Amino acid sequence: MKKLNVAIMGATGAVGREMIKVLEERSFPINKLVLLASKRSVGTKIKFNNEDLVVEELTPDSFKEIDIVLGASPNKIALEFAPYIVKAGAIFIDNSSAFRMNEDVPLVVPEINPTDAYNNKGIISNPNCSTIISLVAINAINKLSKIKAINACTYQATSGAGASGPKELVEQINALNEGKSVEAKTFTHQIAYNLIPHIGSFLDNGYTTEEMKMQNEGRKIMHLPELLVNCTCVRVPIIRSHSISLTLVTENKLQIEDVKKAISVEKGCVLYDDPSSNKYPMPLLTSDQDLVYVGRIRKDLLNENGISLFCCGDQVRKGAATNAIQIAELFVNN
Amino acid sequence: MKKLNVAIMGATGAVGREMIKVLEERSFPINKLVLLASKRSVGTKIKFNNEDLVVEELTPDSFKEIDIVLGASPNKIALEFAPYIVKAGAIFIDNSSAFRMNEDVPLVVPEINPTDAYNNKGIISNPNCSTIISLVAINAINKLSKIKAINACTYQATSGAGASGPKELVEQINALNEGKSVEAKTFTHQIAYNLIPHIGSFLDNGYTTEEMKMQNEGRKIMHLPELLVNCTCVRVPIIRSHSISLTLVTENKLQIEDVKKAISVEKGCVLYDDPSSNKYPMPLLTSDQDLVYVGRIRKDLLNENGISLFCCGDQVRKGAATNAIQIAELFVNN
Repeated sequence: MKKLNVAIMGATGAVGREMIKVLEERSFPINKLVLLASKRSVGTKIKFNNEDLVVEELTPDSFKEIDIVLGASPNKIALEFAPYIVKAGAIFIDNSSAFRMNEDVPLVVPEINPTDAYNNKGIISNPNCSTIISLVAINAINKLSKIKAINACTYQATSGAGASGPKELVEQINALNEGKSVEAKTFTHQIAYNLIPHIGSFLDNGYTTEEMKMQNEGRKIMHLPELLVNCTCVRVPIIRSHSISLTLVTENKLQIEDVKKAISVEKGCVLYDDPSSNKYPMPLLTSDQDLVYVGRIRKDLLNENGISLFCCGDQVRKGAATNAIQIAELFVNN
Repeated sequence: MKKLNVAIMGATGAVGREMIKVLEERSFPINKLVLLASKRSVGTKIKFNNEDLVVEELTPDSFKEIDIVLGASPNKIALEFAPYIVKAGAIFIDNSSAFRMNEDVPLVVPEINPTDAYNNKGIISNPNCSTIISLVAINAINKLSKIKAINACTYQATSGAGASGPKELVEQINALNEGKSVEAKTFTHQIAYNLIPHIGSFLDNGYTTEEMKMQNEGRKIMHLPELLVNCTCVRVPIIRSHSISLTLVTENKLQIEDVKKAISVEKGCVLYDDPSSNKYPMPLLTSDQDLVYVGRIRKDLLNENGISLFCCGDQVRKGAATNAIQIAELFVNN
């Protein structure tokens, strides 16, 4: 097996650090791992395979001899450095949303559309976290009968906002415990003991950028150009794992038992659906692992062809780091 | 104004205590207030209008000369004592779910169906908390055009489970802070930093009793016998105020501006919908008051006649205590 030179751009953030962990766990065939970040993080040491790697400064010259760049930086940085990465001949697997809807950039969930990845021009985008988790949960259903419409309400963990999210939640809880006042920096309002129905920025149609991703990205990943998605995204005061309550309408009427059976054998997800034993997906169960848990599967009460379910997955891993590395694995020996 | 003799059954619980507070706040015309609870709470002192009232034992003989009994006890107690209340000639306004679907028991939200209350045979039921909050939010829309279907995802506070709910949440957070293990008693699983998609008990159709209440009770309160409601109820780690993400389908197509205008002048709710200034309903905003906040109002992306919105309200107050006392107010001078 050919060993690859891999760089992680934004290596000191929540997703970057998780990428390092996942590369090690999955024994990704690495010749050299280069950790890149902005100037202020240069010199930070991070363990990889029992070795201390030192973070280097991200510059246009960072990509010489690199085969794969895993991007865990914001859109602005992704847009700035993508041309240098492509010019250096590396494949850029980018977790930002900067290129996701570009026509010549594949948007890939390896369990769903792996072959799209090969049709790239140097950049492959990693989809939005809630979108990945939802689509892995419903991919088996789409194989039984084409999904026409989805209603989604999310319950998104603070770590979806980066490492500062859970830090702010815990700090606020401690401050409240001590009778101190609370400061909101990462989030628009206090998140401790609160919910915020606002993730991303608001568009003219009243939806947020985050809410529209599930329709826009879902259409592209599932090759369903007419898919309709109505989404409400809500930040909840938990540390990790996003949950999504989904109701979908399929072209044909499906039997619940067939849906459960299909999900139970689908790659990337676990059927966890035994309510009588209090078994249903919950964020505590699904944190720090790579599978999407699917449960509460039942017939929608509004539509003959509708199905409701509840799914949870670790959005830092399957929703970001792991999915990116699964994409990279498609290029091992290719 | 005739002053009434009022008894509160279950006076020491979360809803019972809130009823005492709300009676005082609203200057309900009280001649005598009797606080009733089970044996183990007898002797507890609770302040009402600067006076210490002593909790008495609930017995079949507790209702002599009482005009109105406010029930804040579980179903079992409500079922046991209702015959004695009715026999004593009092009106029983019951917050339990025991009688809600009985044909000869009105189920009342005073902003929606006040006159139903007069058609009682001694018992009037107070609806489910999430149902009250959702229906107050959408009542104005139903007046513009009949609501045919609702998709609801709830974000329900721990206080919905009674006083032990928030206590368990805070105790678990403190235990985790100190590196201790966590015990789940009130909830089926750890609620700190977690979500639990399970409120009530599971029915054969895969929905919970709590989830079916919104359809069953919604039909009765709104006089919409064919209303379809698909609901997912989720417990979230917050102290107070339930939130509900709603998508509804109306008979005719409505304009968003008309919907906002109608909600802004509707009794019992507040239009709080200015996302560009980060204004949308949140549980922190809506706790410890009686109005339902409605925001994030936008066109549903799945249905021409659909509208999505997000609403929050204090379920201990408007979802329980205040609604019951508003029902009682219908009988002042009647």
